[in-house]
Amino acid sequence: MPPFKVAVYLYPNADILDFSGPVEIYSTTPKSGPPPFSITTFAHHNPVPTPSGAMTYVPSANFTDVAGRIEEYDVLVIPGANFNIVGEFIKSKEGAELGEVLRRFAASKPRAETGHRILQSVCTGAVLLASSGILAGRSVTTHHLGFEMLQQVADEAAGGAGKSGITVQKTRWVDAGSTEAGVRIINAGGVTSGIDTSLWIVEMLAGEEASRWAGEIAEFERRGRGFAE
Amino acid sequence: MPPFKVAVYLYPNADILDFSGPVEIYSTTPKSGPPPFSITTFAHHNPVPTPSGAMTYVPSANFTDVAGRIEEYDVLVIPGANFNIVGEFIKSKEGAELGEVLRRFAASKPRAETGHRILQSVCTGAVLLASSGILAGRSVTTHHLGFEMLQQVADEAAGGAGKSGITVQKTRWVDAGSTEAGVRIINAGGVTSGIDTSLWIVEMLAGEEASRWAGEIAEFERRGRGFAE
Repeated sequence: MPPFKVAVYLYPNADILDFSGPVEIYSTTPKSGPPPFSITTFAHHNPVPTPSGAMTYVPSANFTDVAGRIEEYDVLVIPGANFNIVGEFIKSKEGAELGEVLRRFAASKPRAETGHRILQSVCTGAVLLASSGILAGRSVTTHHLGFEMLQQVADEAAGGAGKSGITVQKTRWVDAGSTEAGVRIINAGGVTSGIDTSLWIVEMLAGEEASRWAGEIAEFERRGRGFAE
Repeated sequence: MPPFKVAVYLYPNADILDFSGPVEIYSTTPKSGPPPFSITTFAHHNPVPTPSGAMTYVPSANFTDVAGRIEEYDVLVIPGANFNIVGEFIKSKEGAELGEVLRRFAASKPRAETGHRILQSVCTGAVLLASSGILAGRSVTTHHLGFEMLQQVADEAAGGAGKSGITVQKTRWVDAGSTEAGVRIINAGGVTSGIDTSLWIVEMLAGEEASRWAGEIAEFERRGRGFAE
């Protein structure tokens, strides 16, 4: 099997752990054999600033390069940020361009070589998905302080209050089901739950042993979908 | 109280979650009031590469700037990396220079303004501390697959097998006690346990409410010092 190709979108002041958790898990050196995942980060900005100012990131690709061939990626990770950052982002030109990419990804059948395509949001990354309209009608989640914003943005994208038909779940993460094309949408709750969903996605794509090993290396005890479970 | 100054050392192919976990926790926007921590990253390299190749980092300061005034920082975070990377690093010129900084930091009394000074290792970052000699005689820990390496490196730094007098604990993290100058040494076990120790350090420095809030924002359920507790 070729390695699964993971694309991680970075934007200014996205939460550091929202994307570092998935990158950590997907990049775990396997116990044996070739790495099951290859990871690309892409962004409209270079470098990409962080809210703490502690560092900036140089992504491995620019937005246009990856956006233009998004159907070549098997997993697309969308991190969150604080509510103000996310609120501004979805109104921006960059937000509109990302929304277009999300819709295109969600409408692309899984690659024949891998048989899986997954759209993974972490934390308020789910609000970016909602803004693109692709969460309509689904059971979804986000950071536990962002439930109202998620509902509101999903409804706005659908044309008005209550129109999105989403059900916000108070849970650590949600399998929001598959699109018509067969793209599975997974929403993690806040920050560290992105580690849980990444381990679950590793299990689904690369197997239980790979997932168990990645969890052991990270010394992370997986938790189920329940809240405070 | 002035903000506590945190310095995070980055080196090529250090583990992404080892330092992103602490940065996430220390940079949590407080529920109210000014941020209790300010964070600086420093490195010999710019940008700093990651093992996955998914991105690189631009640190906010260069090594010499921070090393020259390390006693101005209240918390120094040393992340880990895989065993080969760590083994090579401690033999390098950069490793020797960091070792010098670690010894100087461990010998500097806490700043009067803050009253605390903490040296925090995550994962195999403890091996870098061991290599500098400052763990001698202490109860310590590291990633659970690195216990033997930690013992060996500590012994080598002390002049031979068994000479370091360290006791390696099979635990999620260890308070390794304070140096003569009053610098507290904290070793986290593997990767995500750096989040646990950071929350504990926040509690100690900024109070229980700040720590509880940072944990809630990260949706991270703290675990005790026990293994698989």
